[in-house]
Amino acid sequence: MDELEIDAVAEVDLGDPVFVEGLPGVGHVGKLAVDHLLEELEGESTLVRRIYSREFPPQVSIEDGVSELTCSEVYAVTVPEGRDLLLLTGDHQAQTNEGHYLLTDAFLDVAEEFGASEVYALGGVPTGELIDEYAVIGAVSHESMLEGLEEAGVEFREDEPAGGIVGVSGLLLGLGERRGFEAACLMGETSGYLVDPKSARAVLEVLEERLDIDLGYESLDERADEMEDVIGKIQEMEQQQQSMEMPTDDDLRYIG
Amino acid sequence: MDELEIDAVAEVDLGDPVFVEGLPGVGHVGKLAVDHLLEELEGESTLVRRIYSREFPPQVSIEDGVSELTCSEVYAVTVPEGRDLLLLTGDHQAQTNEGHYLLTDAFLDVAEEFGASEVYALGGVPTGELIDEYAVIGAVSHESMLEGLEEAGVEFREDEPAGGIVGVSGLLLGLGERRGFEAACLMGETSGYLVDPKSARAVLEVLEERLDIDLGYESLDERADEMEDVIGKIQEMEQQQQSMEMPTDDDLRYIG
Amino acid sequence: MDELEIDAVAEVDLGDPVFVEGLPGVGHVGKLAVDHLLEELEGESTLVRRIYSREFPPQVSIEDGVSELTCSEVYAVTVPEGRDLLLLTGDHQAQTNEGHYLLTDAFLDVAEEFGASEVYALGGVPTGELIDEYAVIGAVSHESMLEGLEEAGVEFREDEPAGGIVGVSGLLLGLGERRGFEAACLMGETSGYLVDPKSARAVLEVLEERLDIDLGYESLDERADEMEDVIGKIQEMEQQQQSMEMPTDDDLRYIG
Amino acid sequence: MDELEIDAVAEVDLGDPVFVEGLPGVGHVGKLAVDHLLEELEGESTLVRRIYSREFPPQVSIEDGVSELTCSEVYAVTVPEGRDLLLLTGDHQAQTNEGHYLLTDAFLDVAEEFGASEVYALGGVPTGELIDEYAVIGAVSHESMLEGLEEAGVEFREDEPAGGIVGVSGLLLGLGERRGFEAACLMGETSGYLVDPKSARAVLEVLEERLDIDLGYESLDERADEMEDVIGKIQEMEQQQQSMEMPTDDDLRYIG
Repeated sequence: MDELEIDAVAEVDLGDPVFVEGLPGVGHVGKLAVDHLLEELEGESTLVRRIYSREFPPQVSIEDGVSELTCSEVYAVTVPEGRDLLLLTGDHQAQTNEGHYLLTDAFLDVAEEFGASEVYALGGVPTGELIDEYAVIGAVSHESMLEGLEEAGVEFREDEPAGGIVGVSGLLLGLGERRGFEAACLMGETSGYLVDPKSARAVLEVLEERLDIDLGYESLDERADEMEDVIGKIQEMEQQQQSMEMPTDDDLRYIG
Repeated sequence: MDELEIDAVAEVDLGDPVFVEGLPGVGHVGKLAVDHLLEELEGESTLVRRIYSREFPPQVSIEDGVSELTCSEVYAVTVPEGRDLLLLTGDHQAQTNEGHYLLTDAFLDVAEEFGASEVYALGGVPTGELIDEYAVIGAVSHESMLEGLEEAGVEFREDEPAGGIVGVSGLLLGLGERRGFEAACLMGETSGYLVDPKSARAVLEVLEERLDIDLGYESLDERADEMEDVIGKIQEMEQQQQSMEMPTDDDLRYIG
Repeated sequence: MDELEIDAVAEVDLGDPVFVEGLPGVGHVGKLAVDHLLEELEGESTLVRRIYSREFPPQVSIEDGVSELTCSEVYAVTVPEGRDLLLLTGDHQAQTNEGHYLLTDAFLDVAEEFGASEVYALGGVPTGELIDEYAVIGAVSHESMLEGLEEAGVEFREDEPAGGIVGVSGLLLGLGERRGFEAACLMGETSGYLVDPKSARAVLEVLEERLDIDLGYESLDERADEMEDVIGKIQEMEQQQQSMEMPTDDDLRYIG
Repeated sequence: MDELEIDAVAEVDLGDPVFVEGLPGVGHVGKLAVDHLLEELEGESTLVRRIYSREFPPQVSIEDGVSELTCSEVYAVTVPEGRDLLLLTGDHQAQTNEGHYLLTDAFLDVAEEFGASEVYALGGVPTGELIDEYAVIGAVSHESMLEGLEEAGVEFREDEPAGGIVGVSGLLLGLGERRGFEAACLMGETSGYLVDPKSARAVLEVLEERLDIDLGYESLDERADEMEDVIGKIQEMEQQQQSMEMPTDDDLRYIG
């Protein structure tokens, strides 16, 4: 295994495609979003590249007893009415700082190869608590990109994200800018405690507008309902535990 | 010391050998199994390769006052009635992610050199508790391999192993598949708390069938009896400790 | 992204400039000091180099919604009445030991390119407690440099800094000496708990003398006042907490 | 700074010298021993090599205000009546596994350059408690070396050192053997809690015999007396603390 091995699985002609990244991160928002795009656009999607690297964790995942070596996958999507897409998905990020730089450059190489010059990095920004409204926070590589995204409902807040953007999503902006791409990072607000389908939906609604595509949300909404149930149960359990921990007058009398 | 140094200790002609890996892991199941094979087939075994690397821990082991630098060893076994074997054993795995990839490629290089195209990676899967029955869970590089292994008693379960297979055993499947090998991972169930000879035996019984070899188990069974003794003593100690920790009525009266 | 990428942003002719390093460290003393120099000498400063590296944390900072990839910056300052300067600033240090060596060599390359042969590394030395007087402790690459710095008020103490100097500041002395530079490290005493503008000022006053420059301190003094307020509040809170934690006679009577 | 930089400080002709390593480790036994040799044989010692590396911690030590970059030093010693020596000393070991391999190979390169074929690695083996008698435990690269060392008072115990020998000392045996050296590791028993001059002396007494040299021990004995004082004070403090922690009958009555 070299530092990097890119398997060309298929070739597809795309017209000025948009590269969209959905690797695992906060709340798995980006991954959920891109996996949902792949589900909705299955008929128009072709797996074109598999990216292996010594920078990925040294492991295989198992499905129905058959192994698959850690990799990232890129799908080409020829969307009839909207922008053509290159969708990047995977189960793992790089494991070292150098690895992040190396892999992000590899992803941009693939984007270049297919003629893309625009990049969206999708992720979540943790609020630390459960929320009802799901804003989408943004960051861009070029000031000129702000207006168009604000029109699509993206918020640019002065102190967010605190600490900048770490990992592949941040480097797609940083390295993307140096390599001539226009890159934007869309981060759906999320508690940070759960895989969050509602946050993924908020991010996808922005993309729908920017990429001129129409998406259904049935499966994501189902997952959102499941998440609500889980949250409800957790809150119930927490309340029970709290009421059990408070010492009652009886307890105090016993010691005295 | 280069990144990798492979000493050719001897040369042996093998016919379509099977490469079997037994490096330390969960319950030391794989290591016990391969060490037992080496013990049983001592007369037909020849040490052929020693593999040194900067990726191994920087240390020597000492036996009878004499040092030995960390390495992995490959033995060639010409079995009269069964399949020829290449047995990989050692006391340490690689220490970094990149190291795992590098060393697994080196092991596959040796396998290739001797004309092997089939690989077995042996290990354990932790159950988290002591068990009475020892199933062998499997994973394979190619779907076509499932049937033959199921006939030999291997179980392929839907959600196991959870989190995939990490380290050399996983990469022998992942890199093996990319390099044209048919690779299978056999994992004996084990508590995960002890070196487990019973789990090693369960895995060896599968191999006996697949490789057409006959093994005795006397020394492994002796170790199994020792393990039972140890488990018995630990359980006794735990019960004593529990009975000592429960506050009695007397204790409660004293405070009041 | 290569191991190192140095962008030549502009070219400026300097006469025997002095290279001054102000990367983040203890109390952010060095960074505050160099940022203050840049503020005071804004009219005479030109950004000449940006240094990117895989050794920097893989992230972007965001300002007004626009991303900036982690880097260090070098400014050329043509000071009318004093020594010409090369000022190194940034938000992050290297993340690995090797990275520190690599980046320090890169900084010295830039210094050499502009004809500098003198280096000042600025930092803080933690006292572990709040202090009233701010001494500046020194270390040099060559014994011949001691006298001049002592005359400028720098103290050379026998057992300080304990444990030597770690990171870029230390390596600017160590590698600087091997490459023919005269390098000095100036460390302002600081508690180590806060970003310390008073310590930065103490260090700058030494530099004023050594480099023949005149600085105003208004903005630094403002920050110092803010810091005094914060310290005052923290001390208040601590006293309150202490008085709350002591069990009173009443508490003891209740249990008895 | 390259991966490795070896400065040739001076050249000395040695006849079949013995290479002795004394880098920091358990109880600093090896370092104390070699530093003592350098002190006793000062008149016959010449600094010949300084070894710098990116694998050393990125720092400088400070003495009298002047910096020194982390390095290892090799001294050539022409001993009139005994074996010629190459003494390796330093304040730090490598910081990564790969670094240990790299630096040990560099040390053996220097040994080769000066015509050495015998190596002694000096260190300590921790007992976990204070001891009165100081045995020297040994390990060798070749079985043929056992007898000579046993005659000099070295003990070879079956289960020691448990876990083998880690770091430069271990690799001098492991890599030394592969490169044609005869290497021995001498480990003085020591508590492991303190820098131990008595353990260093025990090791040096073995070396005196093997290398035909005569050493005085005045300064080491002084340090040993200081250590006894420190141990005495620690034991006193521990006893006081123990007597303070036991609840008295009075305490129990108060709660009741």
